[in-house]
Amino acid sequence: MGTLIVTEAELRACLPLDKGALAAVEQAFTWIEEGCVSMPPVMHIDVDADSAVDTKGAFVEGLDHLAVKIATGFFRNPQKGLPSCSSTIALMDAKTGLFDCVFLDNGYLMDLRTGLAGAVAAKHLAPQDVDTVGVIGTGVQARYQIESLALVRSFKRVVVYGRHPGRVSDYCLDMAERLKIPVEPLESIEELVKAAQIVVTTTQATEPLVSAEWVHPGLHITAMGSDLPGKQELESEILRRADLVVCDTLAQCKIGGEIQHMARANIDRDVIELGAFTSGARQFERTQQSVTICDLTGTGAQDTAIAAEALARIKREGLGTLVG
Amino acid sequence: MGTLIVTEAELRACLPLDKGALAAVEQAFTWIEEGCVSMPPVMHIDVDADSAVDTKGAFVEGLDHLAVKIATGFFRNPQKGLPSCSSTIALMDAKTGLFDCVFLDNGYLMDLRTGLAGAVAAKHLAPQDVDTVGVIGTGVQARYQIESLALVRSFKRVVVYGRHPGRVSDYCLDMAERLKIPVEPLESIEELVKAAQIVVTTTQATEPLVSAEWVHPGLHITAMGSDLPGKQELESEILRRADLVVCDTLAQCKIGGEIQHMARANIDRDVIELGAFTSGARQFERTQQSVTICDLTGTGAQDTAIAAEALARIKREGLGTLVG
Repeated sequence: MGTLIVTEAELRACLPLDKGALAAVEQAFTWIEEGCVSMPPVMHIDVDADSAVDTKGAFVEGLDHLAVKIATGFFRNPQKGLPSCSSTIALMDAKTGLFDCVFLDNGYLMDLRTGLAGAVAAKHLAPQDVDTVGVIGTGVQARYQIESLALVRSFKRVVVYGRHPGRVSDYCLDMAERLKIPVEPLESIEELVKAAQIVVTTTQATEPLVSAEWVHPGLHITAMGSDLPGKQELESEILRRADLVVCDTLAQCKIGGEIQHMARANIDRDVIELGAFTSGARQFERTQQSVTICDLTGTGAQDTAIAAEALARIKREGLGTLVG
Repeated sequence: MGTLIVTEAELRACLPLDKGALAAVEQAFTWIEEGCVSMPPVMHIDVDADSAVDTKGAFVEGLDHLAVKIATGFFRNPQKGLPSCSSTIALMDAKTGLFDCVFLDNGYLMDLRTGLAGAVAAKHLAPQDVDTVGVIGTGVQARYQIESLALVRSFKRVVVYGRHPGRVSDYCLDMAERLKIPVEPLESIEELVKAAQIVVTTTQATEPLVSAEWVHPGLHITAMGSDLPGKQELESEILRRADLVVCDTLAQCKIGGEIQHMARANIDRDVIELGAFTSGARQFERTQQSVTICDLTGTGAQDTAIAAEALARIKREGLGTLVG
């Protein structure tokens, strides 16, 4: 018996941002599509206007474990020199419910699976030939999204927009070093959207940042910042005009994603879950004119998928400390 | 930094079933009454007909930590020689969201806070003079409920009803040893209800076990088994006839407690939350004739309360292992 306690350092050592991790997260969307996931609504605990705890979880038929992830977002932390987000994941034996493993991942696996979901979206929806990728925001996900994207598309340049010049220049230095390509700041979101074939929005915005007027043929946008009621990064008109709007799960996105705002804007259109594409049930054939949007809120199935992948590697390498 | 990992053995050593633990759980109901608790609905993951994972949590204003508890109920486990229920509790710093502590309590704190909630109910609602306590069921809560009750009432005898003779006799031997009073099996629930001044129901029943015909003046019933839709231990007519019906939280009990069945039985009556009594906002003056019912489903506030009490004691005694 006992529970294997695994630290962030151990998880980082055995599960970097790689193609195996990508495949695990991609699989999660297929599971949802195939109806083999039991995934309740997110449990949201409000602490104050800037701080909350969100718990997600999913049972996937056929997997040895199910996972529940407790994730904190305390957005005044950076003022104290602390990261905004952290998380802990518990893995239970799917046959007995016993707690086999606790990942003290401090948000690492959450960052990974969130970034990789953006890559899964781009893999199935974005143009094949991408010169420039634009990212709005300079935080942790602005990094993970673009590093993940590099697993599925060979782009030549990254452009970034952020409100804080110091953070923008840190981002450019850091990411140019990691990606070995130019990473350049732009002065406006308009410039950024117009310059890029893929745009990823990674902010906490509650008012649209991206105007429909800037959207151009051949653009794919992944909007991953909005995950709670009231958040919004894209002008709703973008969703009306797009050739294809995809989301991770309709149930969550209607509450907290970009598509929560469609009804108010009188937009009534098909929104398709990403799993339809990862499972092969659907394909989208882009033309030069296509505009595609993917609305991501993050699912418990992704957490279970990345946790299962991590556990397999932890066991293979004999990491973790057995306690209890 | 780092996270303090605390085992079941350490928790048992520093936090037995005592008056301090009782006071902590009692406080939880007052917090709910006073509106200083942010407590979302339970996150319920279905695994199969006999197995599920329920996650509860609460933020309480003024506390140093908030807690989220992941609890598993796998009811085929006893056939494998394993306990049905387990749990893990994460404690986060209420100011930063960082994971200060993980309790690998294997259900211990859940058992404790659930048993103690029954004692809180009895303290405020049950007759002062109790000769006989009746318990329906022979599992873990049949033990914790009665041991907890002994903190608030001096009873002389326990009578028990269970479906499995072997478990009934184990229960009688075990509890007579712990309580140092007679603990006797009865052949029927009818006999048991008629013989007792306090009855505690601790089963997974989905059909009423206790008939309204057996209810007599001077009886207090705590029904703690029903906590999910479809569960029921008391005939609804009992709720109609009782002088007072109390519950832990209306929001949860209307979904999963005994009172979920009131509407179907055309019963429209006041149900008062237990916090009204623990806070002193209300008092109930029993007469010889009074019949009172308390419907308990278990709240995230109780989990946060018992976890905070445990953490204080763990720190005082220097227990736990810092990891990460």
